[in-house]
Amino acid sequence: MAKVINGVSIPNLPWEDKPQGCTDTVWRYSKNPIITRNDAFEANSVFNSAVVPFGDGFRGVFRIDSYDMLPMLRTGKSRDGIKWEISDDNLEWTDRNPDIGYEYGYDPRVIKHEDGKYYICWCNGVPGGHTIGLGYTEDFEKFYQLESPFLVYNRNGVLFPRKINGKYAMLSLPTNPGSGGGLGSIWYSESPDLEYWGHHRDVMHPTSLGWQNNKIGPGPAPIETDEGWLLIYHGVMGSCAGLVYSMGAAILDIDEPWKVKYRTKKFLLKPWEPYECMGDVHTVVFPCASLVDADTGRIAIYYGCADTSVGLAFTTVDDIIKYTKENSL
Amino acid sequence: MAKVINGVSIPNLPWEDKPQGCTDTVWRYSKNPIITRNDAFEANSVFNSAVVPFGDGFRGVFRIDSYDMLPMLRTGKSRDGIKWEISDDNLEWTDRNPDIGYEYGYDPRVIKHEDGKYYICWCNGVPGGHTIGLGYTEDFEKFYQLESPFLVYNRNGVLFPRKINGKYAMLSLPTNPGSGGGLGSIWYSESPDLEYWGHHRDVMHPTSLGWQNNKIGPGPAPIETDEGWLLIYHGVMGSCAGLVYSMGAAILDIDEPWKVKYRTKKFLLKPWEPYECMGDVHTVVFPCASLVDADTGRIAIYYGCADTSVGLAFTTVDDIIKYTKENSL
Amino acid sequence: MAKVINGVSIPNLPWEDKPQGCTDTVWRYSKNPIITRNDAFEANSVFNSAVVPFGDGFRGVFRIDSYDMLPMLRTGKSRDGIKWEISDDNLEWTDRNPDIGYEYGYDPRVIKHEDGKYYICWCNGVPGGHTIGLGYTEDFEKFYQLESPFLVYNRNGVLFPRKINGKYAMLSLPTNPGSGGGLGSIWYSESPDLEYWGHHRDVMHPTSLGWQNNKIGPGPAPIETDEGWLLIYHGVMGSCAGLVYSMGAAILDIDEPWKVKYRTKKFLLKPWEPYECMGDVHTVVFPCASLVDADTGRIAIYYGCADTSVGLAFTTVDDIIKYTKENSL
Amino acid sequence: MAKVINGVSIPNLPWEDKPQGCTDTVWRYSKNPIITRNDAFEANSVFNSAVVPFGDGFRGVFRIDSYDMLPMLRTGKSRDGIKWEISDDNLEWTDRNPDIGYEYGYDPRVIKHEDGKYYICWCNGVPGGHTIGLGYTEDFEKFYQLESPFLVYNRNGVLFPRKINGKYAMLSLPTNPGSGGGLGSIWYSESPDLEYWGHHRDVMHPTSLGWQNNKIGPGPAPIETDEGWLLIYHGVMGSCAGLVYSMGAAILDIDEPWKVKYRTKKFLLKPWEPYECMGDVHTVVFPCASLVDADTGRIAIYYGCADTSVGLAFTTVDDIIKYTKENSL
Amino acid sequence: MAKVINGVSIPNLPWEDKPQGCTDTVWRYSKNPIITRNDAFEANSVFNSAVVPFGDGFRGVFRIDSYDMLPMLRTGKSRDGIKWEISDDNLEWTDRNPDIGYEYGYDPRVIKHEDGKYYICWCNGVPGGHTIGLGYTEDFEKFYQLESPFLVYNRNGVLFPRKINGKYAMLSLPTNPGSGGGLGSIWYSESPDLEYWGHHRDVMHPTSLGWQNNKIGPGPAPIETDEGWLLIYHGVMGSCAGLVYSMGAAILDIDEPWKVKYRTKKFLLKPWEPYECMGDVHTVVFPCASLVDADTGRIAIYYGCADTSVGLAFTTVDDIIKYTKENSL
Amino acid sequence: MAKVINGVSIPNLPWEDKPQGCTDTVWRYSKNPIITRNDAFEANSVFNSAVVPFGDGFRGVFRIDSYDMLPMLRTGKSRDGIKWEISDDNLEWTDRNPDIGYEYGYDPRVIKHEDGKYYICWCNGVPGGHTIGLGYTEDFEKFYQLESPFLVYNRNGVLFPRKINGKYAMLSLPTNPGSGGGLGSIWYSESPDLEYWGHHRDVMHPTSLGWQNNKIGPGPAPIETDEGWLLIYHGVMGSCAGLVYSMGAAILDIDEPWKVKYRTKKFLLKPWEPYECMGDVHTVVFPCASLVDADTGRIAIYYGCADTSVGLAFTTVDDIIKYTKENSL
Repeated sequence: MAKVINGVSIPNLPWEDKPQGCTDTVWRYSKNPIITRNDAFEANSVFNSAVVPFGDGFRGVFRIDSYDMLPMLRTGKSRDGIKWEISDDNLEWTDRNPDIGYEYGYDPRVIKHEDGKYYICWCNGVPGGHTIGLGYTEDFEKFYQLESPFLVYNRNGVLFPRKINGKYAMLSLPTNPGSGGGLGSIWYSESPDLEYWGHHRDVMHPTSLGWQNNKIGPGPAPIETDEGWLLIYHGVMGSCAGLVYSMGAAILDIDEPWKVKYRTKKFLLKPWEPYECMGDVHTVVFPCASLVDADTGRIAIYYGCADTSVGLAFTTVDDIIKYTKENSL
Repeated sequence: MAKVINGVSIPNLPWEDKPQGCTDTVWRYSKNPIITRNDAFEANSVFNSAVVPFGDGFRGVFRIDSYDMLPMLRTGKSRDGIKWEISDDNLEWTDRNPDIGYEYGYDPRVIKHEDGKYYICWCNGVPGGHTIGLGYTEDFEKFYQLESPFLVYNRNGVLFPRKINGKYAMLSLPTNPGSGGGLGSIWYSESPDLEYWGHHRDVMHPTSLGWQNNKIGPGPAPIETDEGWLLIYHGVMGSCAGLVYSMGAAILDIDEPWKVKYRTKKFLLKPWEPYECMGDVHTVVFPCASLVDADTGRIAIYYGCADTSVGLAFTTVDDIIKYTKENSL
Repeated sequence: MAKVINGVSIPNLPWEDKPQGCTDTVWRYSKNPIITRNDAFEANSVFNSAVVPFGDGFRGVFRIDSYDMLPMLRTGKSRDGIKWEISDDNLEWTDRNPDIGYEYGYDPRVIKHEDGKYYICWCNGVPGGHTIGLGYTEDFEKFYQLESPFLVYNRNGVLFPRKINGKYAMLSLPTNPGSGGGLGSIWYSESPDLEYWGHHRDVMHPTSLGWQNNKIGPGPAPIETDEGWLLIYHGVMGSCAGLVYSMGAAILDIDEPWKVKYRTKKFLLKPWEPYECMGDVHTVVFPCASLVDADTGRIAIYYGCADTSVGLAFTTVDDIIKYTKENSL
Repeated sequence: MAKVINGVSIPNLPWEDKPQGCTDTVWRYSKNPIITRNDAFEANSVFNSAVVPFGDGFRGVFRIDSYDMLPMLRTGKSRDGIKWEISDDNLEWTDRNPDIGYEYGYDPRVIKHEDGKYYICWCNGVPGGHTIGLGYTEDFEKFYQLESPFLVYNRNGVLFPRKINGKYAMLSLPTNPGSGGGLGSIWYSESPDLEYWGHHRDVMHPTSLGWQNNKIGPGPAPIETDEGWLLIYHGVMGSCAGLVYSMGAAILDIDEPWKVKYRTKKFLLKPWEPYECMGDVHTVVFPCASLVDADTGRIAIYYGCADTSVGLAFTTVDDIIKYTKENSL
Repeated sequence: MAKVINGVSIPNLPWEDKPQGCTDTVWRYSKNPIITRNDAFEANSVFNSAVVPFGDGFRGVFRIDSYDMLPMLRTGKSRDGIKWEISDDNLEWTDRNPDIGYEYGYDPRVIKHEDGKYYICWCNGVPGGHTIGLGYTEDFEKFYQLESPFLVYNRNGVLFPRKINGKYAMLSLPTNPGSGGGLGSIWYSESPDLEYWGHHRDVMHPTSLGWQNNKIGPGPAPIETDEGWLLIYHGVMGSCAGLVYSMGAAILDIDEPWKVKYRTKKFLLKPWEPYECMGDVHTVVFPCASLVDADTGRIAIYYGCADTSVGLAFTTVDDIIKYTKENSL
Repeated sequence: MAKVINGVSIPNLPWEDKPQGCTDTVWRYSKNPIITRNDAFEANSVFNSAVVPFGDGFRGVFRIDSYDMLPMLRTGKSRDGIKWEISDDNLEWTDRNPDIGYEYGYDPRVIKHEDGKYYICWCNGVPGGHTIGLGYTEDFEKFYQLESPFLVYNRNGVLFPRKINGKYAMLSLPTNPGSGGGLGSIWYSESPDLEYWGHHRDVMHPTSLGWQNNKIGPGPAPIETDEGWLLIYHGVMGSCAGLVYSMGAAILDIDEPWKVKYRTKKFLLKPWEPYECMGDVHTVVFPCASLVDADTGRIAIYYGCADTSVGLAFTTVDDIIKYTKENSL
């Protein structure tokens, strides 16, 4: 039985048992979507958002497209991980260095690191393009922006929750801005100090056919297990109606995470429900955060729905690892 | 009168006086192209190549497209900088780390650094894309590959010839692989150790109209002068027959080279001659190297012609700086 | 408090008060959509349609895509502006000049002009392209086609309800037929006689980011107020799933309407409801007509929903002008 | 009154009378969709599927996109043509020749031929592209693959149910793989032996405007009538939100089926219902099979809905032929 | 024998007899190109330029792409029509109205009108696009800009040399800016006052195949003859290496010039010579001006070569009309 | 030493020895191009043409783009294979079946078959597309068109010179008409009777990098040798200036020619000369015919140059086979 390493207890983890008769490894919360435009001030949409346990509840960083349709980050808090109180104001960086750029921000991830800080990675609008933004908070009151890890163009980045081989480590998706969000792969990079980055390694590429044949990008912070790093990721397929974003998983080597041990040949979650198939961008499920209860191995996955709202899905560490190993490419 | 800083004497610099009646700042060598496919073994083309003074002559790293049309690097040597003896074999990296990738290589720059090494920057084919490759030699016999500074996709990189603010510094062109070599800007990055890179800053963008309206990329190693860093660069214009690559110049702040002091509104060299207008890629002049004689301020610029051969052009530090300041955007 | 100029009383204006708790400036009718394919004979869809007060009721010109999916115009009448009786036959022009062209027609606007006529502007299919069609009626029985104001390619045109500086005036969207309905701006043109047009001026362009970053087009006939011409318009955003059409407003100078005094940075209405997000063209709200009651300042806006049906939304002159001024670009 | 030739009695044909007030020639089953992902094992979707009478019930070949999103064929059986029991395993070809290729399969048609066999035509994934696959069964237990009739690239093929002029005959849609499923026409080909094919003739092309202006493809097996071959086909329209797939009909000459006698100017069925407008590929109705009861002339049409599920629609031979003749292009 | 109407004597018309053995209707000047970059100050290229008889010599308006590659207009004069003295400065408009726009200009035509003025039509850069610019001079000293006749986007316009039916008349090419200079047709428009334009009529469209299958545009001012208006125009063909611009001719009805009497099925001149096949835009011959000697019927045609230089070609009114009639589409 | 099988003696084969110092396997004729537009009546270009020995001289079928730029076939004869007398009229098919289509024709191959006939394969314009045309002659006086072997879209076809396994055999390039002549592979098909075709097998695909990374197509008729079928083919590379067409070779299994034994990793001939790099389509060498002298093994290859003229190149059977084996992919 797969075991979470360096995990935490989350007794108040949002949870709902798998429905009778369901044979899927990941299942949806029956009251999805859990967060909609009505839950935030002057919001066109709330989606692709990140949460972590904090104190006796949860904190989160949310992507809000406001009425000007400029994507921005806002913070929120919750007791149960389901009902969220979202700030009316956009997240501001304390004493930030204007040279780094922060014209807009979207698709945040939040990572509780072994160094005690909560890091935020997001897609950051800088002069002339977009790249991964990096910042941190210790209290969800004050936020500090760090140097951008990479040059443009990069769209999805997520830090590992601990140093690997003595270095900070990040997965990201350097991407092609010219073709409507075209092809891209997942890469690994490391840093001694979160200021300078290098040792870039390609981790995995899109497949030639199927649900992940267009591009793939890292999702929530990797989960450390005794089988390796469990990475929940999104895969994109081109159809003649555009793109379809689905969810899969991979298990990466614990010490050399650019080496893929297993990777799902089949999706774990695909847009099926109306709130996933209709909205600002149709047919999208986009995982950005997961909560893992180390005691039970239960996982609650927060995912964006059709670039419009936030959905919740469930699985367990054991189930998802078993499925990934048994259905590996 | 503009002065070269940290320059060297190159008494045997290739040179030809400006033709009678010519009012242009940069002028072509009358015997262009100086290097063609006939000067290398089984070469379809020799172009976009880099040279430096070495011993009592010159050494170079050349882009050769062989008969399989895979771009590769080869070394060469010359007494006069005009006639070149090019190696029959592709450049090999000693004890290289295969994880870094080196599937093919093109458009090299060679920089003699204050640390005594000769660095090579080139566009490096890695699994899943292309990015800047970085390596060095001390003797042009043994070559050592370093970590790639950046993630994919990046096409033109050039190191500054000395540390800036105690850091190695590089200009590069993160670029869009999806649209036939589409839009891109020049960025600045720095590194404490040539292993990890950060502090990325955008330097300059394409203009909305004219010869540099599509993308721009750094050319030869920046030349240190008392007016700032003199950067010779290429600018690309989209025409209804494709792309036109021309040459311009900029003067960057000496301490904060991501700040542009002057930048040519007009091109310095544009494809006019048949060997620049006809070949594997028509209408291309692409500067990759320059030799500067500190005593006279004479500059010999090596540039690729139509992705087919190597041309030579001349100017002086004083002339080009004067022109850049007087015709600045 | 903003005042309507040259307005009319419409005591039977369709109306519904703003819902409790709604803080938006424009709100939807609770029984939307008000006109669907079932309300017209052999209609695939009824949308992007125009209405005016007439007699003690209302008349309209409707876009109907029939079962051959060729867009055509039909007329309709209504007592209350909500239930419409739509003609089974396409609108025919009396004694029309075949040289002008009328292969198909869509997206009509109807303008009651100070000269007493009801003008129809629409996108007119002519040999070799599409441009603004112009015609008029006095009784909604007989319709007369005039010369096309502009060359191809032009997609949205709307006449001002009175002469400006002694000239007829029109806003339009000269557009790019080659890229799926790509980029376009709003232009102003004038005519001494509705036969010859000139003095073309650009009014406003798409923004670089946000809900109106792709193209913008004029909506209903501009409403004259003491603050200037109130123009309700549509803005289009490119997403990776295609285009999203939203509604905004601008206030144009009363005498020089090509000068923009205010323009909404935020949208006033964006596709949120299933009938706006699903249909022949998803994620479209497209305002084509408005009724304004001069007594109360109430505005009823008719807008196309997903190229499939007609929706109704409400606001007041005072609210929309206040919002536009306070949220101006 | 139009008469079916060489037809069979299907007393248990699925049927529902035309709804009160409906004036359309083809109407939907009120309990659509009849087959969804829940009706098959580990299926993302079940659509574009083919059925025939067999024994005292029905058999079918179904397109299933499994969790890897690779389209595959599976068989199924039904007593009433509405409730289907679908095999858990993909259809396998007995002793198949691996040189022919069968990497994936989709959009099957099944034709009961006068030679007694049940032929399956589908879009077959072969090395380097896709083309029409051809196979047969006699008992829906063992299936045998034949040579591919055509070179790549071909997407929709359907055999005529009897020889014409002593030759097997097939309609197909040679198509353009490079532009998201772009333009294509219906062609006729014949074969003496189902092994070698020739005498290719173009049958009909997309129109310049309307619901079939992008490409057209054959649907279910042509129905022999005393008016000619009744061909139900799909037509595709490009909109600014992508493609819209509708259904039309044509009557082909009985002896020279590449000659079109009549062809619907108007669609017979277009995506209107949510299950046709939302799903993996929005706005698609795609007819793949029809059951015709020779006694009553009733036709039950099976069509794919939004690349997600299977719908059922009804008409009669007489109605559809009358409509086609009266609304011919 | 075809006769020029309203023509002038040009005894010093540039001329060279048809070469021995040449059977073509239009032949090149043996000393082409007659104007190159060396003939103008700081010019990258001189091409697509217009000339008229003036005094005892000739005057012209030239397209010059300067070293910034922004296309601009300059004037020039010549005694013999072959050697040209080109102004060092760009053409300036006296007291021009800045609202009309003049950001850049290219591809001028000059028309001596019966009203005594010399009109210039060119492609004019205005805020948000390009359209036909219109201006005049009486002395080639002072130039006055008029209102732009049309909305964006329009690339080639040419005025008729006299009023038709009491109205000024213009041919133009409303065009598609979004697809690299894509499809376009020739249209006719008229104006009572050169201020307001209307009565737009399509004149001719590209053909489906051959040298004019992509777009067509009017060339020099139409020549009045007793057979109708002789229009020399350019036709564009798409090849897999881009566009090929050739020259053809049409004869338009004298009173209703939107009616085409004859139009060449074959080109009259196509890029064959190196100076037409190589340059900033390869494979371009682009006629912009013609001189016609009414006494002899000789025509000297000035055409742009590869967007780089100006070439001269010859024919006679009689020959070209005969050829056009005998080789009409 | 490689031996030609079923070859013929061609004592008057055009020939020129390899130039001193040339190390290439294929070398150009020093008087290239041998056929230009001046060699045919009213021809814009003569290229991509096919020749065979006939009587004591040679006969050929030529692609001529006439002044309408519609590609057509014409015949020609020659005593020495270098000077050609080309018919003034287009090739006409005797008693041809209009249902098969022949709107235009290009890129012919001529194959002397063991059945005694001379077959012509070409790219044939049919209603709705292009495909391989097939015809034959016995005397180069009368020509008979056969059924088209394949459906649209197919661009290059060549028959084997004898039956294989008792069947006629053809190589072709089914291709993608939608993307400027995009990706395509070589396929094998066979026929019992030249009327019906089947048993399609993919032979080889483009490579991922290099001179043949875009599409590949068969060239002259395969040459039977004791090492297998020697196939000279063209490979196309995408560059940022468009496509580059080069020449390579493959050796196919003698009995199962869809199996590739060897295939050149390096090109044999690439556009280098001005007549290959400049013309209607730049950077094209396109082999369409070869003459092989069985006595000496000498091969004369006829190839199209820049879609403009015909060039001649030489090699020997032994050299080309040796090179292909030693430089195989």
